[in-house]
Amino acid sequence: MPVKIPLDAVKFDERGLVPVVAQELDGTVLMLAWANREALEATARTGRAHYWSRSRRALWRKGDTSGHVQEVVEVRIDCDGDALLYRLRQTGPACHEGKRSCFDPAP
Amino acid sequence: MPVKIPLDAVKFDERGLVPVVAQELDGTVLMLAWANREALEATARTGRAHYWSRSRRALWRKGDTSGHVQEVVEVRIDCDGDALLYRLRQTGPACHEGKRSCFDPAP
Repeated sequence: MPVKIPLDAVKFDERGLVPVVAQELDGTVLMLAWANREALEATARTGRAHYWSRSRRALWRKGDTSGHVQEVVEVRIDCDGDALLYRLRQTGPACHEGKRSCFDPAP
Repeated sequence: MPVKIPLDAVKFDERGLVPVVAQELDGTVLMLAWANREALEATARTGRAHYWSRSRRALWRKGDTSGHVQEVVEVRIDCDGDALLYRLRQTGPACHEGKRSCFDPAP
């Protein structure tokens, strides 16, 4: 399902990136990742969370490798336009270490 | 009240900054801000949320101007060490526009 993103209001940093907070609908903060304009456009079009991987320097559709996809329900922008909040449903753990949230303590 | 921050695990970016997600204890994401080492040390020592203001280029103790202080209960670091989560109690609105959260829609 497409999701609305106020693309023209987003202020990208000097690298063309904006930080995105991914939050489960129950309030749990799952991860902080980065998006460029292409990732936001793909997220808006598909409703699947896309990011920009800084380490791999590539568009990253969350879950393509792990199966742990994120279905974005709502995207909010902050008052300064330089941060985004994805409100979403996470399949499986969000963290590549198998934790539900990247902010959970190591098991 | 002092709060524990795993300072040596924090990976600061090329500007010496790390993004911080500020979250109310009920799960509401209030804002995304930035911290340098000095801001983290001050937060750890006092339990009051400190940030680095990129626009003013100054240490920023949240609430000094507005009275809308943040009492940090817990600080979590993500699996990559390059993002922090402040779990906190917010006095008054977090947003300088008077909204509870910077991610709330404009009134």
